[in-house]
Amino acid sequence: MTIGSLLQPYVLRVEAALDSRLQHTSIEPRLQQAMRYALFNGGKRIRPCLVYLVNELLDGDNVEADLPACAIEAVHSYSLVHDDLPAMDDDDLRRGKPTCHIAFDEPTAVLAGDALQAIAFEWLAGDASTLAADIRLRAVALLARAAGDRGMVAGQAFDLAHVGRPLELDQLQRMHRHKTGALLTAAVELGALSAGVSAGERYDALRRYGDAIGLAFQVQDDILDIEGDTQTLGKPQGSDLAQNKPTFPALLGLDGARARLRALHADALRALEPFGEHAGSLRALADYIVARDH
Amino acid sequence: MTIGSLLQPYVLRVEAALDSRLQHTSIEPRLQQAMRYALFNGGKRIRPCLVYLVNELLDGDNVEADLPACAIEAVHSYSLVHDDLPAMDDDDLRRGKPTCHIAFDEPTAVLAGDALQAIAFEWLAGDASTLAADIRLRAVALLARAAGDRGMVAGQAFDLAHVGRPLELDQLQRMHRHKTGALLTAAVELGALSAGVSAGERYDALRRYGDAIGLAFQVQDDILDIEGDTQTLGKPQGSDLAQNKPTFPALLGLDGARARLRALHADALRALEPFGEHAGSLRALADYIVARDH
Repeated sequence: MTIGSLLQPYVLRVEAALDSRLQHTSIEPRLQQAMRYALFNGGKRIRPCLVYLVNELLDGDNVEADLPACAIEAVHSYSLVHDDLPAMDDDDLRRGKPTCHIAFDEPTAVLAGDALQAIAFEWLAGDASTLAADIRLRAVALLARAAGDRGMVAGQAFDLAHVGRPLELDQLQRMHRHKTGALLTAAVELGALSAGVSAGERYDALRRYGDAIGLAFQVQDDILDIEGDTQTLGKPQGSDLAQNKPTFPALLGLDGARARLRALHADALRALEPFGEHAGSLRALADYIVARDH
Repeated sequence: MTIGSLLQPYVLRVEAALDSRLQHTSIEPRLQQAMRYALFNGGKRIRPCLVYLVNELLDGDNVEADLPACAIEAVHSYSLVHDDLPAMDDDDLRRGKPTCHIAFDEPTAVLAGDALQAIAFEWLAGDASTLAADIRLRAVALLARAAGDRGMVAGQAFDLAHVGRPLELDQLQRMHRHKTGALLTAAVELGALSAGVSAGERYDALRRYGDAIGLAFQVQDDILDIEGDTQTLGKPQGSDLAQNKPTFPALLGLDGARARLRALHADALRALEPFGEHAGSLRALADYIVARDH
């Protein structure tokens, strides 16, 4: 089974859930069109897939995982919209399509990002969820922390502050653990919470899995920036190098970066050992993350 | 007693609470400096004062209101930082001080705003609160909705989409009910929730009070833009007119706008009648909102 066919039911599931949750009306329809554009931009839906796969591994019902899956995808989407802004990375294209501020305009992109962040917390906390109140609260606090000034946004700020400046390996790793790792680990935790599991050995093992694939994801991103071609990546190949961004291959060499990727992949698989056969899908996802070509 | 001395203990209280909650460290200290700069920018703290005053009116303990008060001020502060961005209102000054993107830089302002929104929900949902789980969840959902695409952000998007275009009175009111009213009403509701009151006649009456002062606040803002002087306002007098923004005086005339303000003030006081003597502070706040000169 390919990773695409493995993940497809979850991708379809979260997209149907997102679609149905965005049916309400606003006084400013264009704002909501921009939110929808940002949410349905051809993304791989890795974070919601993680929520569902972890929830299933812990015998959860995926109905309980729908809102957490939607919420983390909304936070991820908002972060892409703001990252692409002219004041930030100034990207016109994402996955080969015009970025939100190009398809709409800059103020609309700022506000659509802001509203996507707000709606993520509304979805997690709202009455539509049947999860226990303490689990939902834990989910809100965890996602907020992973998204904020000790998580994703801190990583992004650190990144912007260090463009063109040399980074040590541990700084680079810390940056990525914040910038992309925090949200991927949060996805795993939201999956566990959806199954009613909020602590214990299984929870900790899954967190370690999330940490490992989060960093592996970024190492592979850096490798792809050197190896990939523009059409497959949806962004110009070599753009990190051109912008003098610190990367794993720049610090470790391409072979060193590949070795680091293999070590992280092994960490991820080791974390899944206690789950035996049941963790086949999460194993396949880890395999995909280190082998993907875009 | 002046409104200043009436509100001072609450202003000091929320500022101490904000200060102590921002002591954690991030990998990017400059991001947190910007968040602090945005939070401590000389604002009037009307929203947190509302949280405390309503909480006290309903016999709540203000310890329970600290986190909701901090959270709503964080959301308000983030919205000002993003509103001031070059792509939005492009303001260099707020209350006579450089705006966040001037004092820092534009990417830092975008990210500081994003992180302030996230931290608001972390504060409301986190373990530091001793409020019941269902009340905290209600607070998260309510604040998220008031801040998002059916609240504040929708109002801001509607406003930007209609600069230079004529608005009917009901459109103008709807815009302000979203843009500023939603968050002021949410402050009142958070105050009630802090006291453990989440429904009923008193809750509804306080909501009506919040709606009335929210709109009154904006009508007075529009009047001040014509009548006030630049130094007191902290922004150029007449700047709404210069930007051809729709305002209450433009639609109703200055006398008509003043009459609307008096009617809203009367609505606010009427909503407080059931509370008798105890609502003296909320009455004084309503008086201040319609009489303030900046």
